[in-house]
Amino acid sequence: MPNSNKTILGAFVQTRPKFGKNLENIEHAIKLASKVKADLYVFPELCNTGYAFTSKEEARALSESLQTGPSVEALQSFSEKNECALVAGLAEASDGEVFNSAIIIDNGKSLGVYRKTHLFYREKLWFEPGDTGFKIFELEKVGCKVGPIICFDWFFPEASREVAILGADVICHPANLVLPGKAQLGMLVRAFENRVFVITANRIGVENRSPEDKFRYTGKSQIVSPTMEKLATAKSNESVAKLARLDLELARKKKVTSMNDALADRRIEFYKEQYQNLRLNPELTISEK
Amino acid sequence: MPNSNKTILGAFVQTRPKFGKNLENIEHAIKLASKVKADLYVFPELCNTGYAFTSKEEARALSESLQTGPSVEALQSFSEKNECALVAGLAEASDGEVFNSAIIIDNGKSLGVYRKTHLFYREKLWFEPGDTGFKIFELEKVGCKVGPIICFDWFFPEASREVAILGADVICHPANLVLPGKAQLGMLVRAFENRVFVITANRIGVENRSPEDKFRYTGKSQIVSPTMEKLATAKSNESVAKLARLDLELARKKKVTSMNDALADRRIEFYKEQYQNLRLNPELTISEK
Repeated sequence: MPNSNKTILGAFVQTRPKFGKNLENIEHAIKLASKVKADLYVFPELCNTGYAFTSKEEARALSESLQTGPSVEALQSFSEKNECALVAGLAEASDGEVFNSAIIIDNGKSLGVYRKTHLFYREKLWFEPGDTGFKIFELEKVGCKVGPIICFDWFFPEASREVAILGADVICHPANLVLPGKAQLGMLVRAFENRVFVITANRIGVENRSPEDKFRYTGKSQIVSPTMEKLATAKSNESVAKLARLDLELARKKKVTSMNDALADRRIEFYKEQYQNLRLNPELTISEK
Repeated sequence: MPNSNKTILGAFVQTRPKFGKNLENIEHAIKLASKVKADLYVFPELCNTGYAFTSKEEARALSESLQTGPSVEALQSFSEKNECALVAGLAEASDGEVFNSAIIIDNGKSLGVYRKTHLFYREKLWFEPGDTGFKIFELEKVGCKVGPIICFDWFFPEASREVAILGADVICHPANLVLPGKAQLGMLVRAFENRVFVITANRIGVENRSPEDKFRYTGKSQIVSPTMEKLATAKSNESVAKLARLDLELARKKKVTSMNDALADRRIEFYKEQYQNLRLNPELTISEK
């Protein structure tokens, strides 16, 4: 039955994946998640495989089908048993290609997938650029709408804006962040400017798999409110799940003052430069009517 | 002659205007500005009149022509004498209407005006919504391009994005901020996501002119870099001008990594919801070719 009160318990799960140990990583993540009782969990980006691939072949070999892969099955089973929803970042195998994806699972069933739109750095060598575009997913029992974005998507205000306009109450943000604090600050501002909650689930640990790519992941996962409050935060070195109560009404009131609305006050007739290369994209040709 | 090295000295001027004492306020601001020697100064929003109008008539009576008003003349004279550029927020009278505007003056000459696009709260009662759209202005001698936005424009990522895409090196941000710290945090993120400098010039003091509108202005003007550093900051209670050296090359390199570009990596084909009411605006109808 749908959630009749308007608050939900949201959680991030901050993990330390071991590179290439997919099922072990997922079981570790589920074990951490099980320590708190949330309606909605967000797991890190690429939480099945780890991050620092060294070739496309390696990424292809370690990625999994989001229909039949063992990581998805384990996550579905956790979701079904606990009657909860989750968003998890996974290396996705699809028709011989690899995507940096997030799966959305509700009550044991996959609702769909979001594929990372803005690839960071050498990810461009391993992954296809996401082709799903931004989408939101309605969690029926929980009674809320979630909009996934992945890691570096945070940097582009258009990503969070898009899912907010689509109606997201909560931006679910799996991440593998390496710059200390930048995205955390950024997502405070994204939450505030769009009047949404944001759950950022980052990972911790070090990956040192090639001379080019030595990564120290910075943790500090967080849950932030539409009014720029930090509701929960993790340290930079702990494997942990933490939760916060989210009052969804706060994300549905877009009023900033009695005379201002965060979305309706946008004056898109003055944002022309941002859209002008639409002209080059026939799919987006806008009709004369 | 144009600036051959690539750094400039930018400054904010944080003032405490007295309501309705236009020329006195401008002289106070110029006196503060004169204490530092900058290439480019940013003065607060409505730094001629003060902020807390109580009627449209009052706003009309206190606003000034940006061609012939005494505030503009005083600012032009300061700019000419010091061979500098400035951006200043002024209540502008134009054909019987009042705009919350910023004037851009370079070497004694007005280059143009920007009228605030996103009006905050009861400003909607006193001012016309800005009709100029976002623009950038080339400061020839200083050798840089500035993009003005005013106060609450900060809240809309589209405002800073627009002037960045137009080519601004420095976002000049006159403000009369009342919420502590929100815009300052926001402009750090705007600078970072657009790879531009931002000079926010806020005011201080209290205006208590009607029961509805008691405003305590929060100061903390700041200059921030494209890499999210605070280069200069003011306290919340001081009338002061402060400057920082801006390395313009930093704002012209939009590379975030060797494989990422802050602007070119935008994938506007996935930002559809953000501009779909363009369809309603015939001026923006996009042709089929």
